[in-house]
Amino acid sequence: MNIRYIVPGPMSKTSLGAAELERRHRMLKRWASPETVVTICDAPTGPASIESAYEEYLCIPALAEAFVAAEGDDVDAAIVGCFDDPGIDALRELATRTVAVGPAMASVHLAALLGTSIGIVSVPEPGALRRLIAANGMRDHVCGIAVIESSVLGLRDDVTATTAKIIAAAEKLVETGADVIVLGCMSMAFLDIDDQLEHAIGVPVVNPARAALGVAETLVRCGLLPSKRAYPTPPKMLAGASLQQLTV
Amino acid sequence: MNIRYIVPGPMSKTSLGAAELERRHRMLKRWASPETVVTICDAPTGPASIESAYEEYLCIPALAEAFVAAEGDDVDAAIVGCFDDPGIDALRELATRTVAVGPAMASVHLAALLGTSIGIVSVPEPGALRRLIAANGMRDHVCGIAVIESSVLGLRDDVTATTAKIIAAAEKLVETGADVIVLGCMSMAFLDIDDQLEHAIGVPVVNPARAALGVAETLVRCGLLPSKRAYPTPPKMLAGASLQQLTV
Amino acid sequence: MNIRYIVPGPMSKTSLGAAELERRHRMLKRWASPETVVTICDAPTGPASIESAYEEYLCIPALAEAFVAAEGDDVDAAIVGCFDDPGIDALRELATRTVAVGPAMASVHLAALLGTSIGIVSVPEPGALRRLIAANGMRDHVCGIAVIESSVLGLRDDVTATTAKIIAAAEKLVETGADVIVLGCMSMAFLDIDDQLEHAIGVPVVNPARAALGVAETLVRCGLLPSKRAYPTPPKMLAGASLQQLTV
Amino acid sequence: MNIRYIVPGPMSKTSLGAAELERRHRMLKRWASPETVVTICDAPTGPASIESAYEEYLCIPALAEAFVAAEGDDVDAAIVGCFDDPGIDALRELATRTVAVGPAMASVHLAALLGTSIGIVSVPEPGALRRLIAANGMRDHVCGIAVIESSVLGLRDDVTATTAKIIAAAEKLVETGADVIVLGCMSMAFLDIDDQLEHAIGVPVVNPARAALGVAETLVRCGLLPSKRAYPTPPKMLAGASLQQLTV
Amino acid sequence: MNIRYIVPGPMSKTSLGAAELERRHRMLKRWASPETVVTICDAPTGPASIESAYEEYLCIPALAEAFVAAEGDDVDAAIVGCFDDPGIDALRELATRTVAVGPAMASVHLAALLGTSIGIVSVPEPGALRRLIAANGMRDHVCGIAVIESSVLGLRDDVTATTAKIIAAAEKLVETGADVIVLGCMSMAFLDIDDQLEHAIGVPVVNPARAALGVAETLVRCGLLPSKRAYPTPPKMLAGASLQQLTV
Amino acid sequence: MNIRYIVPGPMSKTSLGAAELERRHRMLKRWASPETVVTICDAPTGPASIESAYEEYLCIPALAEAFVAAEGDDVDAAIVGCFDDPGIDALRELATRTVAVGPAMASVHLAALLGTSIGIVSVPEPGALRRLIAANGMRDHVCGIAVIESSVLGLRDDVTATTAKIIAAAEKLVETGADVIVLGCMSMAFLDIDDQLEHAIGVPVVNPARAALGVAETLVRCGLLPSKRAYPTPPKMLAGASLQQLTV
Repeated sequence: MNIRYIVPGPMSKTSLGAAELERRHRMLKRWASPETVVTICDAPTGPASIESAYEEYLCIPALAEAFVAAEGDDVDAAIVGCFDDPGIDALRELATRTVAVGPAMASVHLAALLGTSIGIVSVPEPGALRRLIAANGMRDHVCGIAVIESSVLGLRDDVTATTAKIIAAAEKLVETGADVIVLGCMSMAFLDIDDQLEHAIGVPVVNPARAALGVAETLVRCGLLPSKRAYPTPPKMLAGASLQQLTV
Repeated sequence: MNIRYIVPGPMSKTSLGAAELERRHRMLKRWASPETVVTICDAPTGPASIESAYEEYLCIPALAEAFVAAEGDDVDAAIVGCFDDPGIDALRELATRTVAVGPAMASVHLAALLGTSIGIVSVPEPGALRRLIAANGMRDHVCGIAVIESSVLGLRDDVTATTAKIIAAAEKLVETGADVIVLGCMSMAFLDIDDQLEHAIGVPVVNPARAALGVAETLVRCGLLPSKRAYPTPPKMLAGASLQQLTV
Repeated sequence: MNIRYIVPGPMSKTSLGAAELERRHRMLKRWASPETVVTICDAPTGPASIESAYEEYLCIPALAEAFVAAEGDDVDAAIVGCFDDPGIDALRELATRTVAVGPAMASVHLAALLGTSIGIVSVPEPGALRRLIAANGMRDHVCGIAVIESSVLGLRDDVTATTAKIIAAAEKLVETGADVIVLGCMSMAFLDIDDQLEHAIGVPVVNPARAALGVAETLVRCGLLPSKRAYPTPPKMLAGASLQQLTV
Repeated sequence: MNIRYIVPGPMSKTSLGAAELERRHRMLKRWASPETVVTICDAPTGPASIESAYEEYLCIPALAEAFVAAEGDDVDAAIVGCFDDPGIDALRELATRTVAVGPAMASVHLAALLGTSIGIVSVPEPGALRRLIAANGMRDHVCGIAVIESSVLGLRDDVTATTAKIIAAAEKLVETGADVIVLGCMSMAFLDIDDQLEHAIGVPVVNPARAALGVAETLVRCGLLPSKRAYPTPPKMLAGASLQQLTV
Repeated sequence: MNIRYIVPGPMSKTSLGAAELERRHRMLKRWASPETVVTICDAPTGPASIESAYEEYLCIPALAEAFVAAEGDDVDAAIVGCFDDPGIDALRELATRTVAVGPAMASVHLAALLGTSIGIVSVPEPGALRRLIAANGMRDHVCGIAVIESSVLGLRDDVTATTAKIIAAAEKLVETGADVIVLGCMSMAFLDIDDQLEHAIGVPVVNPARAALGVAETLVRCGLLPSKRAYPTPPKMLAGASLQQLTV
Repeated sequence: MNIRYIVPGPMSKTSLGAAELERRHRMLKRWASPETVVTICDAPTGPASIESAYEEYLCIPALAEAFVAAEGDDVDAAIVGCFDDPGIDALRELATRTVAVGPAMASVHLAALLGTSIGIVSVPEPGALRRLIAANGMRDHVCGIAVIESSVLGLRDDVTATTAKIIAAAEKLVETGADVIVLGCMSMAFLDIDDQLEHAIGVPVVNPARAALGVAETLVRCGLLPSKRAYPTPPKMLAGASLQQLTV
């Protein structure tokens, strides 16, 4: 089974660089099932990080091209490496044989099988995340979103401090009723602090990268593709247009 | 008061051409309040029409630039000329003094003041529209979406036939409980068939272009801008980046 | 365009007197679009102010007569001057060519286009308001109602103190998540403190008188009347009875 | 225990006359628990029957006076004899020691203990009933409202034909999923056809007069009064005003 | 009318003993309508008390046998003496002429007729109770569940202390918006502290034993049985199997 | 990784016999990830099949013992082999290191990642399934449940006929809006007709055995256990009681 993790922005051009991409690749390989081949790529262009609805949209054209390229490489499932699941419906429209998985909804649905009241720890801004949750009918499952003060790119500057902030935010969510926590940011997912968090917080903590990976493996193993009735191929493509020809 | 209607795609480059843009401009001026100055523009690039979630996302970068240009022209309110309200949250993040209005939500909220069960007549595909409605918490207000068989660009090829299809779809919605109808496509809004529809259907029919115009005028007259707490300025722009600098 | 603001009680007989009616009239004229002719009237009988569900019902018979009189005067839209929208469904049943607008639902739907979580500042008692919001399917949009200690008639006794109370209540709502505020009382709407509030609170503050006025102008300009399928004419009136003959 | 059934309109002045009031009284006595003393009265003025939201409001002032009179007569619980529960919240505000019961909500909550999907058979118009159900948070429990063609006053003209219409409407509701039926009109409740209906329809049929009676008896026996926190006494009455003094 | 209260566990074998069963019987007789004959029994086997979902399930087989025995004794209605309403749907499947009433849903639906925001005071653990409320569509009616620290069996060890804990928990619920309180545990129902609670708390307090009794009496008097369409007889029993034969 | 599939009833004692258990074991091994060791067992006692809420409860005590035995065998995850997920909350309370997975909720949450409107094909009776869906907050995701006429034990008597019935039921669901189908019965899951179904129906068809297997593997690989805050250990067991000692 081939799974590709697509970073929806040019991470290798940012200060994090290709090394971070490589580091995340190693972690994904460690987390995957033995028979899964995981590849990773970033998009050639787009926002350096996604901290607004605008940047979320901004990443989609290049992400779509990377997804179509993955289909060309016989990838079975592609994971969109951003917790707002940007463009996930668009990728499903474009898909012909590759499953598109978004880590936010994969995590929220998995968390719903572990507890009854989900708390999400995220970075600003949670508006797009709230709309994603509502659009997917999971508003009543999520009891709260707590944001920590940090830019996405700054999360790894001081992992100890970031870990403390995440634990504090999660504890506040647990106090107000959360019985399962989801890490709501892919940069948090790769901090390699899962054991610390679970131990400190006392309720399950869902890592969205691992959740997305597991959901992707499950769907591929079950032979399931997203519904074309829910996500139909764009009519112009049915009539023969290529992805590039959709733009005038 | 200055209001700009932005077509989120290069309409003047399509078969409809600049003439259609001009025709729509004339209708908007006819519909607007006397003291309102309406301008119109299309985006320099993007999809020829929006018939999928993917094309909806594809139009947003050029739409955002057109919106920022409108702010530079001292426009008080900008209407996004697509019934899926693409990128409306992103425009509100970017806004500093211009109100961004989406015709779908403007129409649905106005329709909720006229009846209790809203039916929408649209063209395929309604998936993105359904998610928009759910994301905005209006799922229980909308009793159904009926699609007519036509491409967006083909709606004006035979206005009589299109009108008959819209009436048939609306009647089916009314039979199953709708007591107010919304035209769910901006190309329908400019067919100039409002009187025929209302007469034939027997319940109010909301034209989304006129609804968006009225909401825009009202918000400007009330001195109201979208909440920055709901739609915060992208952090990188707060730190000095320009719109263009968000893309690496 | 003719719009009439109907105070649903005999304000000119109360301590506020005809002067207050005149003062509100001047504000409405200032807020309206230039081509709109605004008139104002109060009901000849009814409660001095509406501070309970019972008084809300008590005002409806005289309000209905004033509405029918407005239709006789060729008024295009009538605004019910109470934030609980008393009898708005009844007026729509009675209407033949005049739009009936209630300020509460006009404000809440407009606010939903500015933010995602609406806080309402009101005076006791909020029970009827809560039921109105639920009956109109907007329960999930309204995150809270904060009441300030004051009678409706006493709000203008000390405008500075009232303003401070409104700001404090709004700030509490913002702290618990509100990103847009609605003033939930028509006497607050006419305190002429909009600029102060918006400046102090930092999120949009919807004035229900202005919101109702804008919605009324928009519906009239769009040629839209409330749905007769949702609000049918009383059968006895269809059979020829006058408004007065409905009472035995 | 004393329970009073208040017909919210001057039934004895209509073509039905005092005889119908007496006939209903006999049925109520038959249905009540042996130790309950049931009295009946109609309002001295108001609509002949309630077939619109407007007439629903029209009956409330005289109904309120009849309710306050009932309190003066040491009545333990009063039932509002209209299936839209007109003014029930107002009566609870006015109450000091008498329980106010509305047959619609009594029936719907009782029906929810018998099945999972409630169908209501009513006469036009169901708009006010729909808003009542939504305002009380029971929208998801009610799968449909089927109306039969008849005026309220005409239901008894041909009981056999009316029974057939009710059965046909109920069967249609059962076909679309209803597993318990509520008769949504008090004139249906007194047709004395309960056994026929239950036998013909095959699912439980809740008679709203009997449901209201049972709920009233239960609340009185439990010593429970509606919450003053939910339904506070009108402030002007707390300050000493009489019911009559609320009207200027 | 014959009503049986079934304790779903072998209370007479626990430290509480047959004396407690007898004490509860006396209270039920005091609360019932004069013409009602109340009997009480416990199950011969099962959990000593129900403090987990597991124990809730554990009690059902013996409870079902006790229910079928009640039907054999011509009991008109049976009340399941546990606030989680364990197995209530199963009992309704098995029923042929006896109404099965669960105190939790009887109380919640009755409370919804007294206020608009229900607070429940319970003992751990509330998970099963939350699922019961959601499964019955009453999630939006219940604003909170407050648990007091005590085992079910320990509630009567110090009634004064327990009463103080219940009052404190209820007051916290009222502060956060509850306007009616339900005692969420049958052992609380029989503490005989109703008057104290109502006086101390200031909003109605629903005793679930009395609520269930009243609902049972009402349904029997109305001649209503739970819907067989909602709760069909197990197919194997329709084909002739006895209750015992369902277990292989 | 060790996963055990527990049939919650004595299948080897029924007409299906140990051969069917063995056949299902082979299919599970075929579906599992290569590194997973799947075992299967049935419960020593309980209902022959689960076709009612009563039988669902009846299976839980023996199921719980089988689950605790699985924990003793170092099983990482246990799947409850019935589509109503009987006792899943109880198993999570009892669990100390083994994940309990129910196929219904595993399937519904996975299906929500493939489409937006889930149709379920089941056998009677769907009441318990509806309550399970509502209790888990997934009511709005499931657009319909279609039942086919067959006993659970009779499904394999004529696989061709059963397949045709399933396809017909699924097509009806798709016509009314479903865009993803879930097989709502474990005996359907093992008919080995997945390819036929997907081909005939044209939307994804989720096999609940495979979905549960995939979810179990994912949760184990992610190191996640159900939340003890949501599903606390029964207090009596915390105080030292064994599973058997919970029954008096």
